[in-house]
Amino acid sequence: MEKIAFIGTGVMGKNMALHLLKAGHEVVVYTRTKEKAVPLINEGAKWAETLGEAASFADVVITMIGYPQDVKEVYLEENGILDHARPDTIVIDMTTSSPSLAREIHKAASEKRIYSLDAPVSGGDIGAREARLAIMVGGDKEAFDKALSVFERMGSNVVYQGEAGAGQHTKMCNQITIASNMVGVCEAIAYAEASGLNPETVLKSISAGAAGSWSLSNLAPRILDENFEPGFYVKHFIKDMGIALEEAEAIQLKLPGLELAKKLYEELKDAGEENSGTHALYKLWKN
Amino acid sequence: MEKIAFIGTGVMGKNMALHLLKAGHEVVVYTRTKEKAVPLINEGAKWAETLGEAASFADVVITMIGYPQDVKEVYLEENGILDHARPDTIVIDMTTSSPSLAREIHKAASEKRIYSLDAPVSGGDIGAREARLAIMVGGDKEAFDKALSVFERMGSNVVYQGEAGAGQHTKMCNQITIASNMVGVCEAIAYAEASGLNPETVLKSISAGAAGSWSLSNLAPRILDENFEPGFYVKHFIKDMGIALEEAEAIQLKLPGLELAKKLYEELKDAGEENSGTHALYKLWKN
Repeated sequence: MEKIAFIGTGVMGKNMALHLLKAGHEVVVYTRTKEKAVPLINEGAKWAETLGEAASFADVVITMIGYPQDVKEVYLEENGILDHARPDTIVIDMTTSSPSLAREIHKAASEKRIYSLDAPVSGGDIGAREARLAIMVGGDKEAFDKALSVFERMGSNVVYQGEAGAGQHTKMCNQITIASNMVGVCEAIAYAEASGLNPETVLKSISAGAAGSWSLSNLAPRILDENFEPGFYVKHFIKDMGIALEEAEAIQLKLPGLELAKKLYEELKDAGEENSGTHALYKLWKN
Repeated sequence: MEKIAFIGTGVMGKNMALHLLKAGHEVVVYTRTKEKAVPLINEGAKWAETLGEAASFADVVITMIGYPQDVKEVYLEENGILDHARPDTIVIDMTTSSPSLAREIHKAASEKRIYSLDAPVSGGDIGAREARLAIMVGGDKEAFDKALSVFERMGSNVVYQGEAGAGQHTKMCNQITIASNMVGVCEAIAYAEASGLNPETVLKSISAGAAGSWSLSNLAPRILDENFEPGFYVKHFIKDMGIALEEAEAIQLKLPGLELAKKLYEELKDAGEENSGTHALYKLWKN
């Protein structure tokens, strides 16, 4: 059974690594703040003092970290993962990051006979906890096949999407869809309230039909409860939308809906809501 | 069992009236083009030569017609429904129309001791055929209770939303939600294709998760099949978005997502697609 290095043990990473431990994998963890790794160490994970130590130990290196800049650093800089991983290691970036960077890492990895996959996820903290993540994978099919059993410990909808970068591109499709939908959901609730309707009764009429969506069923009720705790952070969503817009610009694709959503989310961030959940977008209509 | 006048026998109205006939109601039909009523007449409906003949016959008058201007004419002009309906008749406009007009009709009806309900539907031609429409009702609760058994012949999700206009306002919430979501769905597919992904494989990753929606599950596959037959017409959707924006403006509510969607749909209409289905919006990214 593969030895796994898990880099990044935030809300998502911690739960994902836990499933690997429970499945019987040897797991070594490394993260910037050791405290965050303690729950995993208590469950039997080993602690690596350096990134290099983690990378050289493993058959499979998984990263689940913050921003593309972090991903770039951890893989490509001196003493990074690619400097230390052994040939035939499979490195898997599960962070939502840039498709272009995924291709860059894949190229650098290939030159060292290391396999590289980009495999961002969807499903949030609940999906991570219940091992029901959607995992969208790009890279060599051979590496995907080898890593499939590892993915299946963490997700219930694992799909190979194509060459390096395709996983990240697919995640961008996911975020593009969500972005405009969230605008629609928030505008509908704002309209319901402003026109004197009872928004809860409105949801009874519209949630099950053609207006229905995951966001309407799961986030609209939280909006009505004024519960803006993050399932997914505003700041991370802005990062994702930024990546998608950059990629779209590079291929001269106009995405006016996504542009509008990003602009609205930036207003929300400027209003001090960057650590709220994405459904806090509704507050723009409330203030 | 109530005698019912059914005004307007297009794709939606025809199927709705058929369920009332099958339930054993006496149904009289009137429509501008008699031809469209023939299938119902063949099933046992009576033909009324005038609107007044239909209205004076019935305990319940149902209208399912085109645009708010038609609704206004049919109810409020000389020799219209309110001129001919007997006191205690329940008149029900199931057209998607203006909340303000619904209140105006309600007021005029009340003065003649006629009950008025606004009860637009969602669920499209399939919902009408299978009697699984969502029906969103505004008006007097007493009239709603009396008409409930009639609604339940046509719909499976019948919800009383409040005073006159509340049904139409609720339908606007439905359309506001759909409008931005459709933009997101089309942009995601356009991005998938432009970035070299297989959009069908992308849908496998994203349809079941947080990006999931009725539109993504039902309309995205039609887009990929290049089947742009109308479930719901572009021209009618533009009408609905126009009503919602007018109402929002009247209460000084900004809906930038809806504004953008309407602008994009008008571009689509200008490109000759007014009689296509709403998912033809995707063509804006294809041309």
